[in-house]
Amino acid sequence: MSVLSPYQLRQQCRSGAFSGNTSGFAPGFVQANMVILPKQYAADFLQFCHFNPKPCPLLGMAATPGAFTMPSLAKDLDIRSDLPKYRVFQDGQLMAEPTDVRDIWRGDLVTFLIGCSFSFEESLLADGLEIRNISEKVNVPMYRTNIACTPAGVFHGAMVVSMRPMKPADAIRAIQICSRFVQVHGAPVHFGDPAAIGINDINKPDFGDAVSIKPGEVPVFWACGVTPQVAIANAKVDFCITHSPGHMLVTDLANSKLSVL
Amino acid sequence: MSVLSPYQLRQQCRSGAFSGNTSGFAPGFVQANMVILPKQYAADFLQFCHFNPKPCPLLGMAATPGAFTMPSLAKDLDIRSDLPKYRVFQDGQLMAEPTDVRDIWRGDLVTFLIGCSFSFEESLLADGLEIRNISEKVNVPMYRTNIACTPAGVFHGAMVVSMRPMKPADAIRAIQICSRFVQVHGAPVHFGDPAAIGINDINKPDFGDAVSIKPGEVPVFWACGVTPQVAIANAKVDFCITHSPGHMLVTDLANSKLSVL
Repeated sequence: MSVLSPYQLRQQCRSGAFSGNTSGFAPGFVQANMVILPKQYAADFLQFCHFNPKPCPLLGMAATPGAFTMPSLAKDLDIRSDLPKYRVFQDGQLMAEPTDVRDIWRGDLVTFLIGCSFSFEESLLADGLEIRNISEKVNVPMYRTNIACTPAGVFHGAMVVSMRPMKPADAIRAIQICSRFVQVHGAPVHFGDPAAIGINDINKPDFGDAVSIKPGEVPVFWACGVTPQVAIANAKVDFCITHSPGHMLVTDLANSKLSVL
Repeated sequence: MSVLSPYQLRQQCRSGAFSGNTSGFAPGFVQANMVILPKQYAADFLQFCHFNPKPCPLLGMAATPGAFTMPSLAKDLDIRSDLPKYRVFQDGQLMAEPTDVRDIWRGDLVTFLIGCSFSFEESLLADGLEIRNISEKVNVPMYRTNIACTPAGVFHGAMVVSMRPMKPADAIRAIQICSRFVQVHGAPVHFGDPAAIGINDINKPDFGDAVSIKPGEVPVFWACGVTPQVAIANAKVDFCITHSPGHMLVTDLANSKLSVL
């Protein structure tokens, strides 16, 4: 399965043959977080991404309300069927987790695609660094912080961060590598003392799973793509569609294209 | 005085009108550590610099033994007189600290110039970061570590590091900025726990002066140009001339020319 091209994988999502986690599929290609909002929220959400580029690095936005293509990121895309699994929210409540949203599509829905840490994790692994959540085969631990995002319209909230423990010398190398990837969260925002950014218990993440932190390692924190989901929940939007966690849009864009240096 | 060009400052050194610390002079221009060794040590020392580029980033080497010019770095240079102060060592002992070494110059002496942290400190300050040793008006604290340099011939020893305390977010920014300056020690080699690199008491530096570390800050450690001086002492060379600490060669090379990105 893992040798499928991004296009082939999207076609399998469309036909219903694939509905799993996309981690490890189509290596080398950008996977994206997806947010679909009614038109009345689109301008505020775009501004929120603009004001908070580290947690909300915008990779793409549909050209018009109702559009379900994104030619610059994926050929022959139907955003309504080409992800393996979706989440549908009404008035902040998770209503369904379907594999296709064609039946509930509306002409006023605006699609946003946001960078995902899979892209930089690949470069860290290629450099020989260990990614603890990968070696322990769990989801990356994520935490709510006391770092306030810049609000925009109805969207507001604290930054969510992901954490990967590293020895300091490896953390320095990771900062160098991630600095190249400004469109996928960029350099870390903090390392060391969790309490300094409002995290009370590093062993109890708010999202994802705890990972072990070994002697001599420090926690390193990256701005996380869960941040916009928190802002959307705070905004109490009446309707929203997102990808299901881990079930990303796999694009035709090579990860290396996101590297600015 | 601080508006002197590098050439004018070197001329004042040559005439004896200036023999002070060069910190803050000729802003924007590269200042260099200097090591002068008899020819029989030159190949080993060059190899030591090659093997240990972070503590010993070689900016220049004289074309031939006896040469006292370095056209690529400074016009009309006489390395024997154009630094404000020198140190002369015989069999590892400091013998004199003259302002001119023309009278003891020999045809077998080979000059090496090594990058200095002044270059990256300028870029950190320009970015709005605080450099504690500058704000407290002392020499940067430096420490012997347990990080072994790669030996070359008679030259060997542990890496010496300089330390600047910073908040983690500032340290991340400093790592980005210093990564551009591979010829002036590059990115830090460590942050956080001093004991992890063999430093027993952060308040008792082996060279330079202690600085205050404020709540929320971590010590950040850079490979330091004192490392080659330790290696030279270990090598028990019979004769050596260096700059006097803080009394650097001021070159005509703009600091920005050392930035690779």
